[in-house]
Amino acid sequence: MKARAAIAWAAGRPLEIDEVEVAGPKAGEVLVRMVATGVCHTDAYTLSGRDPEGVFPAILGHEGGGIVEDIGPGVTTLKPGDHVIPLYTPECGQCKFCTSGKTNLCQAIRATQGRGLMPDGTSRFTARGKTVFHYMGTSTFSEYTVLPEIAVARINPAAPLDKVCLLGCGITTGIGAVLNTAKVQPGSTVAVFGLGAIGLSAVQGAVMAGAARIIGIDLNPAKFELARQLGATDCVNPAEHAAPVQEVIVEMTDGGVDYSFECIGNVEVMRAALECCHKGWGESTIIGVAGGGEEIRTRPFQLVTGRVWRGSAFGGVKGRSQLPGYVDRYLAGQIHVDEFVTHTLPLEQINHAFELMHAGQSIRSVILF
Amino acid sequence: MKARAAIAWAAGRPLEIDEVEVAGPKAGEVLVRMVATGVCHTDAYTLSGRDPEGVFPAILGHEGGGIVEDIGPGVTTLKPGDHVIPLYTPECGQCKFCTSGKTNLCQAIRATQGRGLMPDGTSRFTARGKTVFHYMGTSTFSEYTVLPEIAVARINPAAPLDKVCLLGCGITTGIGAVLNTAKVQPGSTVAVFGLGAIGLSAVQGAVMAGAARIIGIDLNPAKFELARQLGATDCVNPAEHAAPVQEVIVEMTDGGVDYSFECIGNVEVMRAALECCHKGWGESTIIGVAGGGEEIRTRPFQLVTGRVWRGSAFGGVKGRSQLPGYVDRYLAGQIHVDEFVTHTLPLEQINHAFELMHAGQSIRSVILF
Repeated sequence: MKARAAIAWAAGRPLEIDEVEVAGPKAGEVLVRMVATGVCHTDAYTLSGRDPEGVFPAILGHEGGGIVEDIGPGVTTLKPGDHVIPLYTPECGQCKFCTSGKTNLCQAIRATQGRGLMPDGTSRFTARGKTVFHYMGTSTFSEYTVLPEIAVARINPAAPLDKVCLLGCGITTGIGAVLNTAKVQPGSTVAVFGLGAIGLSAVQGAVMAGAARIIGIDLNPAKFELARQLGATDCVNPAEHAAPVQEVIVEMTDGGVDYSFECIGNVEVMRAALECCHKGWGESTIIGVAGGGEEIRTRPFQLVTGRVWRGSAFGGVKGRSQLPGYVDRYLAGQIHVDEFVTHTLPLEQINHAFELMHAGQSIRSVILF
Repeated sequence: MKARAAIAWAAGRPLEIDEVEVAGPKAGEVLVRMVATGVCHTDAYTLSGRDPEGVFPAILGHEGGGIVEDIGPGVTTLKPGDHVIPLYTPECGQCKFCTSGKTNLCQAIRATQGRGLMPDGTSRFTARGKTVFHYMGTSTFSEYTVLPEIAVARINPAAPLDKVCLLGCGITTGIGAVLNTAKVQPGSTVAVFGLGAIGLSAVQGAVMAGAARIIGIDLNPAKFELARQLGATDCVNPAEHAAPVQEVIVEMTDGGVDYSFECIGNVEVMRAALECCHKGWGESTIIGVAGGGEEIRTRPFQLVTGRVWRGSAFGGVKGRSQLPGYVDRYLAGQIHVDEFVTHTLPLEQINHAFELMHAGQSIRSVILF
């Protein structure tokens, strides 16, 4: 089958819209027609060449919404016509991670996914006579993509795919980190570093958790209006303070916050997020993805005096069993998504979506096929 | 009152046995006659000059057992004759830390304690005509010491003070870190880095918690016999492996341990202890005290993929309300203490106790007055 796709032929180069040959689904796989996809910082990170797992040429994209077009042999839980969200964190339900009850990090297909391949070790994409790699097991920047059955969440067909595609990564990640990973308690004080889609979703997660005070922190004050609209009670621009931001937050909160979230991927901010936590009980959760080889650091005294440092991937959400519930909560008006879609563009303008993101002018651009 | 004490006149010099003038207890204070005291690595750390809070001259020691000799005005919860353990982490019961229900780190007298003074900002010790500072609010290397009422735990008088003095720091710290801070679950796999008194106590804590596998790690294989006796199922000497110890442990445990404990104070070992934890759920607790200014570091990916980094001080134990229960559990045979006392020495030989500790020849030396 032929499809239009935005192909990353090499690191650091704009995507190119090409015709790609998509092979049909093999056993345990499904073919999905993509309806919409978000563009996320992680796509830009890999495209930049800084991602140690990045392979090229590849079809990027991991925040999609689509409809099942065909299924391969042995697929029992999905059928053509199902509305779905691809999962970069799959859920096989059988590996020791899935059965642990402690994590959403299914490892069933981790090895091949990390190499840009389907579980059988091959790719379904060919373009200009060359094999094109998958990306994060999702490759949503293609009109048609092939996914393992375990990496697809079936959702309520009433949900608009050009909105709920954002639940495939950023929004779910931010909300889930607050509710599942940190388990923010009612009445708490929360600091959110970075007010992009993930940070703004951490803000709305904190509202859902009943936090009493929610401090949004960003160098771009243009982000503050939406942050306040979603529930931030205070906004801080570190550039307006001479003191390190952790000291500013500790001062504002009489000793520090109960919970903090790093939603950028900057190791210095990760340190600040930990160190603005309250002695004795403050917990900091890292959500952002740092550059390859970069390290976090702090004095161990920060932990010995009661702070906790943790991290979250996809908000601790198990995609197949829990993501459909997030879609339902969106439909019930309990999760904000529409506010995050600042731009809607056709596939042909996908590079502009990256430009808007780099310029800090978009929260999320949604690409329509 | 005159008393014999081991005085640290300057950093890096042996202690000197001197006569010290001990002023009587002021309001809210008690005078305690020390019967026995342990010698701990933290005493050596401060004596070395590396402790940024170290002030001299001072009377060190923080692992004591004694009997109340006199009380100052307003003291209501202690009386002469009570058997007690001094607390370097007090429990006022009223500050926001004590009332939080989340931490044992009472801050009521933190500021003065950190400067080697009683809560009123003065010292009770004088020697050779000079003011001598308190240490950790306890100063147990003196025949008589003065303590704030909130820094004294009254214990069962049936307990031998020359043994349960060790519950004033190391043993309680190790057990408490396992039971209160990490909350080790039955059936877990546990790694303990460093098999001194704290690490060996973490081993016995892991046994109490029902851990299925307990791996003790030390460069000194002479520690392994007691570790096994207390319940370690495996012992690892990193010097016998070419690979980094975290890789050795991950290999041994099919992916890593559920809980690890750093009981040394070495920032590189703290990193190894985190990185030997299982992806998805492994939690590492720092107990050891690192040198001033030293920093821990790791790739944030370690946390984003589900590991948790925390720390523990005095095992998360609230001294006045919970330490007496530890003494009772010792008396009931549920906590091992006697095995830790490898040497018993008179005060005059206290420098020898430091030598034995530095040479790795003692677990704990107990000084008898």
